[in-house]
Amino acid sequence: MTAKDRKDKANRHFASDNWAGAPPEIMKALALANAGHAPAYGADEWTARAVKLIEKQFGGNCLAFLVSNGTAANVLGLSAMLKPHQSVLCSSVAHILVDECGAVEKCTGARLDPVPHMNGKIMAQTLEPFLLAAGNQHQSQPAVISVTQATERGTLYSIDEIRALSRFARKHGLRLHMDGARLANAAAALDSPLRDFTRAAGVDVLSFGGTKNGILFGEAVVFFDKNLAKDFPWIRKQGLHLMSKMRFIGAQFEALLRDDLWLRNARHANAMAALLRAQLEKIPGVEICFPTDINMVWCRFPERAIPKIQKRFSFHIEDPATRMARLVTSFDTSKADVMDFAAVVKQAVDGK
Amino acid sequence: MTAKDRKDKANRHFASDNWAGAPPEIMKALALANAGHAPAYGADEWTARAVKLIEKQFGGNCLAFLVSNGTAANVLGLSAMLKPHQSVLCSSVAHILVDECGAVEKCTGARLDPVPHMNGKIMAQTLEPFLLAAGNQHQSQPAVISVTQATERGTLYSIDEIRALSRFARKHGLRLHMDGARLANAAAALDSPLRDFTRAAGVDVLSFGGTKNGILFGEAVVFFDKNLAKDFPWIRKQGLHLMSKMRFIGAQFEALLRDDLWLRNARHANAMAALLRAQLEKIPGVEICFPTDINMVWCRFPERAIPKIQKRFSFHIEDPATRMARLVTSFDTSKADVMDFAAVVKQAVDGK
Amino acid sequence: MTAKDRKDKANRHFASDNWAGAPPEIMKALALANAGHAPAYGADEWTARAVKLIEKQFGGNCLAFLVSNGTAANVLGLSAMLKPHQSVLCSSVAHILVDECGAVEKCTGARLDPVPHMNGKIMAQTLEPFLLAAGNQHQSQPAVISVTQATERGTLYSIDEIRALSRFARKHGLRLHMDGARLANAAAALDSPLRDFTRAAGVDVLSFGGTKNGILFGEAVVFFDKNLAKDFPWIRKQGLHLMSKMRFIGAQFEALLRDDLWLRNARHANAMAALLRAQLEKIPGVEICFPTDINMVWCRFPERAIPKIQKRFSFHIEDPATRMARLVTSFDTSKADVMDFAAVVKQAVDGK
Amino acid sequence: MTAKDRKDKANRHFASDNWAGAPPEIMKALALANAGHAPAYGADEWTARAVKLIEKQFGGNCLAFLVSNGTAANVLGLSAMLKPHQSVLCSSVAHILVDECGAVEKCTGARLDPVPHMNGKIMAQTLEPFLLAAGNQHQSQPAVISVTQATERGTLYSIDEIRALSRFARKHGLRLHMDGARLANAAAALDSPLRDFTRAAGVDVLSFGGTKNGILFGEAVVFFDKNLAKDFPWIRKQGLHLMSKMRFIGAQFEALLRDDLWLRNARHANAMAALLRAQLEKIPGVEICFPTDINMVWCRFPERAIPKIQKRFSFHIEDPATRMARLVTSFDTSKADVMDFAAVVKQAVDGK
Repeated sequence: MTAKDRKDKANRHFASDNWAGAPPEIMKALALANAGHAPAYGADEWTARAVKLIEKQFGGNCLAFLVSNGTAANVLGLSAMLKPHQSVLCSSVAHILVDECGAVEKCTGARLDPVPHMNGKIMAQTLEPFLLAAGNQHQSQPAVISVTQATERGTLYSIDEIRALSRFARKHGLRLHMDGARLANAAAALDSPLRDFTRAAGVDVLSFGGTKNGILFGEAVVFFDKNLAKDFPWIRKQGLHLMSKMRFIGAQFEALLRDDLWLRNARHANAMAALLRAQLEKIPGVEICFPTDINMVWCRFPERAIPKIQKRFSFHIEDPATRMARLVTSFDTSKADVMDFAAVVKQAVDGK
Repeated sequence: MTAKDRKDKANRHFASDNWAGAPPEIMKALALANAGHAPAYGADEWTARAVKLIEKQFGGNCLAFLVSNGTAANVLGLSAMLKPHQSVLCSSVAHILVDECGAVEKCTGARLDPVPHMNGKIMAQTLEPFLLAAGNQHQSQPAVISVTQATERGTLYSIDEIRALSRFARKHGLRLHMDGARLANAAAALDSPLRDFTRAAGVDVLSFGGTKNGILFGEAVVFFDKNLAKDFPWIRKQGLHLMSKMRFIGAQFEALLRDDLWLRNARHANAMAALLRAQLEKIPGVEICFPTDINMVWCRFPERAIPKIQKRFSFHIEDPATRMARLVTSFDTSKADVMDFAAVVKQAVDGK
Repeated sequence: MTAKDRKDKANRHFASDNWAGAPPEIMKALALANAGHAPAYGADEWTARAVKLIEKQFGGNCLAFLVSNGTAANVLGLSAMLKPHQSVLCSSVAHILVDECGAVEKCTGARLDPVPHMNGKIMAQTLEPFLLAAGNQHQSQPAVISVTQATERGTLYSIDEIRALSRFARKHGLRLHMDGARLANAAAALDSPLRDFTRAAGVDVLSFGGTKNGILFGEAVVFFDKNLAKDFPWIRKQGLHLMSKMRFIGAQFEALLRDDLWLRNARHANAMAALLRAQLEKIPGVEICFPTDINMVWCRFPERAIPKIQKRFSFHIEDPATRMARLVTSFDTSKADVMDFAAVVKQAVDGK
Repeated sequence: MTAKDRKDKANRHFASDNWAGAPPEIMKALALANAGHAPAYGADEWTARAVKLIEKQFGGNCLAFLVSNGTAANVLGLSAMLKPHQSVLCSSVAHILVDECGAVEKCTGARLDPVPHMNGKIMAQTLEPFLLAAGNQHQSQPAVISVTQATERGTLYSIDEIRALSRFARKHGLRLHMDGARLANAAAALDSPLRDFTRAAGVDVLSFGGTKNGILFGEAVVFFDKNLAKDFPWIRKQGLHLMSKMRFIGAQFEALLRDDLWLRNARHANAMAALLRAQLEKIPGVEICFPTDINMVWCRFPERAIPKIQKRFSFHIEDPATRMARLVTSFDTSKADVMDFAAVVKQAVDGK
């Protein structure tokens, strides 16, 4: 899509929450942090405050580290949990499995085992067969269960479901990892403190996403088991993610966590997705695919309608076989954006 | 160093050019880029323009890619040049060897062979013995020579010296890699277009540093041999550095390259280092260690003076054995900073 | 199973063809090779002759290398074909996927994508969906199709089926790898020269198994595309498989290939499996699972019969869910072994 | 060297102890082990007995594992001791550093730091400067000291020297690894039980070499700290060294350890080296380089003499700069071989 093409289209799209920039609070925090010299590589005060604020969200007595993107948060967090001869059990649509170009495998040497899922969610009972490998010297040893909260299908694990997975993990000597690229959206949707469905539900290591929640760059890796964190400074450095001007990630996270900006961003995005779904449900010929728990609507448009809609709005068709469209809202999606989109869809579906 | 400690000290230090933030032009560019939605993962217009501007600096017909930090630029650029059974010849003080926590080795599987150096520079003739491994199935095969321009000692390779290394490389089937974390400072000091001492001198792959030149985050990997670049989109992704909101790196690089901001930043930093050296030379008891070609002065202070100076200004002592201090200036170092520092040194050396 | 336990049982089992030792020709060749000193690391005459004999089987003008086991043959052969951001398409029961403890992933950094199969065989049409990743920077790039000939299910690809896969590979820029741990059994079953269903059918890199065909240690990696082999001496060394007293692998391979010992071994093993199947088919309550193309019979025994049979004969139950038994014959399996086994099965099934 | 060339020369050379084959006891053990079927992958009785005999040499209560070659023993043993962000301190002539084609780096992701040595030996005091990296997130963390006993220079660490290294290791939280490719020669030379200069002197993980001591293939990795061994079955499998017909390595080791064959082999080889040295010392113009503690003599021949000697006997010139010749004796070197060699040298040096 060229610049000109985009000008002819809406300014805000439904392609992904990482198509959005950042709200003014974040930009202001960046500007304020740009004051003179500060120690490099995370030894600055903004990073210190951000890390403390993150840890506080989870009740303290845990360890948070900042990295610059979500791939790094997941891959490096998992690196701290894995040996090369081990494996991760995750859903067959898990981002770490299908969208990271083999980064987990390359960086950890370990394998990802795809587990059947329901609307993006895996259940403890489905994991049983994977335990057969345990103790067999010919097979990678299951060591970590990784769940995405909220999932790649826009659905949510309930707190009980996460607890069931962590109980299963504990029982079998595994650890629980959570990819929380959209953790804020999950918290908003569950109307629950971050701690309740992460640490308190038995998660060991968490990727806490900032980028999709409204900052330019930055994710946190949070270790609830501090033992797992003891090598993380080196894992991060050797993993190419010790940023020198770390304060500018710290400052963004600080702004995000102060005054619940993160939660407001997430609530708004979720609300816009709910509105979008409601509008799409009214249009005959549009088929909704999954529950819409967070800021993501999956649906199917009539085939001929797709190019017409995409002429005005960008969004992804995940799979040419199923033709499922993924629509993502963000902190800056407006009601008008949603209504415009729905109108364009209506017209396209009606063949106008 | 706590926040309080730092408040009692100078606002600008001599610890590293990555202790500085960014000039107003960069912050403005970030703010302007924060306009509505833009395609993620580098498909945006800012990235397109930045990449074009970078490529233009080198005469076009080359390929530039943005990553978020210098570790990534070096490690991923080298990944595109290396197979696991090969080796890189680099100076024994090369940043990639001594300051990246084994990242090159882990990510590429290849080995770094430390080459004796003179003031941070390696010479073609010193490389001869390393070629003995060539063809021997028991030894890593030399494949890449990596030079840092300007060097970790603050010195410069002349264009002729780089040419001699690239001739040697060509002759023996090796490639030439350049770590240009301070490439701008080198260009300013050589008073030479970037192209002349990189591509035109035979460099194959270049890390073009932005962070130490005054942006928040961002470096470019530039491939003069486009064949080497054909896998780079995947190397970058699997290497954890495909940023989703890439436009904010693109926008910074664009601002850096427009109106020669990069060159002005570098010239200023270099000038401040020259001034600093001149001031230090006047102080009996301070021993200057290397030529000061760029924005870096290496010197030795009397041992008892060091804590006194460090009470006011941060800087690194590289090696407790040699006690060499590394003083780095940046785009925002002022004459007053330098004169203050010199005065503090004078006092400390005089034992006051 | 303790030594005592085994003494009470049959001397020859149906657990795997690698439970057998070696025929006298191989032991004699080892003894003859043990004469004085010979250059180490493969520079000896036995290795030279063995390599030549192997290459001759495929029409010459190819390159063969010896390694000490089948894991190494597959993993190192694939290492020569793959970059870390690429993927291998193989059946979901492929040995390289399910029985190598993640060795391919760790050694190559690449990923294995499980493809649906029919009796262990994958078909070109099933591979189409995996090509959707091609060109997408977020996903591992398909680069190699790997087939096992004969398959883990004891079935065979016809020459036409292999050709169809290699045509598909060529068309889409992929390479074809063949795991030939039981290549000899395939050749015997197809009654076809080795070349016809490997090189002539479009295979690029082949693991040619010796161990399961009757030698103590040793497999060959054969490159039909010599370009792919140019780094293999180093891949093998860095991959831990440059044996110092290589002549003792060379001598075994030489003996195996002289006078068609390899083919006689394979024919005999295949014939014993055919006999075994015929006997089992006569027993009501034993369910045969797949075609028996080579030296392997898959079947289901009544659950209560299994421990009774295993009291006398060792064999593997692959999957507790399906209870499928895998019975493998080898060069030294006798008719009496087969008839004994069938009698024991009959008794056990009859509940005696 | 072609077969014909070698026929014109001596049957036994001084190139390496891995140019020799195996004594009759080993060949006989192989033949006896070749009896019917045995469980694969190390579950056989020969392996069980061999492992027990090895463990007994070290006082029991340790864990030994068999692999097929020395590269694997060192690399996989170190894999059990290392994380990717750590480093190994070893002499700058250590085999693991200079002769394994980067295998340690590739398999572990860790780095090898070359330590200055004296006749192949490193000393605790020389290691101090390497500890400066400890705790610095930019540098690989020292985790293992690796010594070769006997060394690559044919010298020996005394028991006290090893103890000093292990004390240093303990004090600084490091582990001690020993490459014992020629451990038997060391035991013979020290006239000391294996245990005394390994486990009792503080070694944590040991490579116990069989190949250079007179077997066809096989080395053991011995863990004195059993905790370090708990993942080793998988490290070995994923590291390509779980041999299917393991019994044939087990049987060789069993024969080697029964009736002290290993010690007799080593004593003989050492004695032949002592004789060789004594003969060479008598020849003016031959310069001996290091102490001759085991089965290895390092010396310098006049340049013009080298091709004349090599016309009859194979040996290695390690370094064209220093022209040092390495002469290695083995279990089958005869007095006549040594006297012949000395005579040829004398003639060559005398210019005849």
